[in-house]
Amino acid sequence: MPTNTAIEHRRAAILSIGDELTLGQKVDTNSRWLSQQLVDLGISIVEHATIPDDLDAHVSALNRLASRCDLIISTGGLGPTADDLTREAIAIASSDSLIHDYDAEQQIRAWFTARGRIPASINMVQAKRPSRGSLLENNHGTAPGLFAHIAAESHRCDVFCLPGPPREMMPMFDAAVRPALRPPSGRVIETRVLHSVGIGESDLAQRLGSLMDRTNVPLVGTTASGGVVSVRIRYEGESPRQQAHAAVDAAARRVMQLAGEYVFGAGNDTLASVVLGRLKESGQTIAVVESCTGGMLGEELTAIPGSSACVLGGWITYSNQMKQSQVGVPGELCAPNGPGAVSHEVARAMACGGRERSGASIAVSITGVAGPDGGTPAKPVGTVWISLSHAKGSDTRRFSMAGDRASIRSWSCTAALAMAWQHLDGRSHSLLRQVEAHVA
Amino acid sequence: MPTNTAIEHRRAAILSIGDELTLGQKVDTNSRWLSQQLVDLGISIVEHATIPDDLDAHVSALNRLASRCDLIISTGGLGPTADDLTREAIAIASSDSLIHDYDAEQQIRAWFTARGRIPASINMVQAKRPSRGSLLENNHGTAPGLFAHIAAESHRCDVFCLPGPPREMMPMFDAAVRPALRPPSGRVIETRVLHSVGIGESDLAQRLGSLMDRTNVPLVGTTASGGVVSVRIRYEGESPRQQAHAAVDAAARRVMQLAGEYVFGAGNDTLASVVLGRLKESGQTIAVVESCTGGMLGEELTAIPGSSACVLGGWITYSNQMKQSQVGVPGELCAPNGPGAVSHEVARAMACGGRERSGASIAVSITGVAGPDGGTPAKPVGTVWISLSHAKGSDTRRFSMAGDRASIRSWSCTAALAMAWQHLDGRSHSLLRQVEAHVA
Repeated sequence: MPTNTAIEHRRAAILSIGDELTLGQKVDTNSRWLSQQLVDLGISIVEHATIPDDLDAHVSALNRLASRCDLIISTGGLGPTADDLTREAIAIASSDSLIHDYDAEQQIRAWFTARGRIPASINMVQAKRPSRGSLLENNHGTAPGLFAHIAAESHRCDVFCLPGPPREMMPMFDAAVRPALRPPSGRVIETRVLHSVGIGESDLAQRLGSLMDRTNVPLVGTTASGGVVSVRIRYEGESPRQQAHAAVDAAARRVMQLAGEYVFGAGNDTLASVVLGRLKESGQTIAVVESCTGGMLGEELTAIPGSSACVLGGWITYSNQMKQSQVGVPGELCAPNGPGAVSHEVARAMACGGRERSGASIAVSITGVAGPDGGTPAKPVGTVWISLSHAKGSDTRRFSMAGDRASIRSWSCTAALAMAWQHLDGRSHSLLRQVEAHVA
Repeated sequence: MPTNTAIEHRRAAILSIGDELTLGQKVDTNSRWLSQQLVDLGISIVEHATIPDDLDAHVSALNRLASRCDLIISTGGLGPTADDLTREAIAIASSDSLIHDYDAEQQIRAWFTARGRIPASINMVQAKRPSRGSLLENNHGTAPGLFAHIAAESHRCDVFCLPGPPREMMPMFDAAVRPALRPPSGRVIETRVLHSVGIGESDLAQRLGSLMDRTNVPLVGTTASGGVVSVRIRYEGESPRQQAHAAVDAAARRVMQLAGEYVFGAGNDTLASVVLGRLKESGQTIAVVESCTGGMLGEELTAIPGSSACVLGGWITYSNQMKQSQVGVPGELCAPNGPGAVSHEVARAMACGGRERSGASIAVSITGVAGPDGGTPAKPVGTVWISLSHAKGSDTRRFSMAGDRASIRSWSCTAALAMAWQHLDGRSHSLLRQVEAHVA
């Protein structure tokens, strides 16, 4: 374990190592997780860098980042094979040499013995460390982590090297890195995220106006993803925590004043989790009847632990036959001279039939043309009807979604959840028109 | 559109821009996708870099990467708000100034008009571009992309700036970037991917043996994701295309000799697409009956265009009541003294009931404990029963899945699709035991 360091960790970089990342064979999720941990501690992230398994690239990335930061956390390159170069790279960058650590060798042998296995001779390279550095114990795999520091021109940069697999990396961060970090004393980072639906990003920005000026403290920014626009509020400065908190609070209140009718949640809330929360609070249940989304809405609702308390289930009425036989859509509605499977009438019949047959408090149905085929001039690809059936009646709306099959399906679920949220929250109908206009 | 460039694109960097990335609020999936596209074209990736919405950081990242590469592809920072700085950064880095592009303004206005909306005045900033650069049309959103080039000391670096949302970024890459790229001539990269299910990664590696030596040409490697182990064959060299092709063919044949019974597809095949293909070939149909997966299996099957030819639909029988009322699971099976909702008997009744009521050729059911709560000593979290009902009977199996709720649900779908594939393909039952052992 590294001893207490005298320096403060103000500016950090995350370095990810591996051909599988730069070749596009794997998505890097470690950088996101590590950033969250550091930001929560008040440490700024200046960069994520990802490099291939190449010693020169590795050393020069370490040196470059060390000149800009006082903390580097790297992941990957600690395995036993020839393309695992983190040990050598950190030795070179910290002007040190590698030594064999006999304690580490014992730990590696013990790890294998405990599993009834014998370590391969190549595993012994994992007991090497820079002579002035130290090893970080790995309780979830064979590769120990490393701690070392690089002397940059005017300052010192601490480097923690963690293994690539998240299930080894995360516990090692918690056990060996987090306690060794020295977040800037007096420096406070406070963040808040509010999520909205039913308004486009540019319209929301227009409403927020000068609140989004880049010189403001706290900073307010927006990001859009799949029909949800999130407002990010971020305070970074030297004020006491309480004052930072009050400033973020004030900005959040201002966002609510300017656009609160579109805000459905904050932080880790999703539309699905908020809908489930409202259902639980009011002791209600939900059923789904899905055509073009084929189960996606049910999947999103049941992805949330504990959803069985209010999700009864539903139907995937993909064929017209299933719509008729399973939720009682009248056959004439789907017939050639009827309104057709993608229509106000069928969406409504699906939701009402589903609510009746499941006994749920509310039922939501989705029927549409997800494409790429099946569009007509009257019902082009992206035409989606969504209906919500509840104790006092039903509400059925037409949406025109842009994008490919996957986007149309995913935005249909967002729109369906938005309708359920607005109903459960007692929001006005005018907002639904906004959803309709803006979800696409 | 950029005109033909005289240079070759040999070394590329991917630059991702956004506070939401460096703050750890979002995982960057663009870099992976872009890397795959470039690597397939024979262009090497030297780095992925991710930076916050900060003009200085942005300009210096562009300059630094331009000095090392002849191609930069950036994503993000093209929105209409004050924290979208890509236009300014590229103008500074390419020693240019921003001008207003009236054609682009017309396109943006047309995009809004087509959706019955009026552009906000801030959207007009999206019509700006460096005077010597050009705009890339966006058919899936308001933000045009940018093309410009930076003069590095000894060479020129082409820069393509794409929007952050993947559903805008990917089509823009295909339409405007891919045709403008100049991969190194003479250099041949040929890749092949085979997908297997029912065997673990290390067992597969053992079977492939020396075929996976790191000095081989072509290189053979494996990657595992959600129960599917893919074998990647990659030739990179100066040989004629034909010779490269033959070498990759020979390696693929060898993989099939050594482990062909586990290989279900190649390239863009997925288990779901292969199952749908087999159903179509034989004129059969499928229905699903899902409990713990809540619609995920239906979603995976219907994600594939044209799936309506053989997917009839199904049921999300999340509650016991729905299992009984909708697919006829006998009430006593779910009763306190019965085998319970997660059992051989209930899985079988779900599949048989679903097949009967839908009239499908085959029906697949899933019932399990996805957690985090609900586990018991006899049925711990991860216990999943899957049943396949077909004309000649049914096949019901117990799986023990490892991981969290999301993994257990996703691996359950993989196992269900693997059972359907093996049935439709007439594969032996012994393989199913392998699925059982290895999917977890």
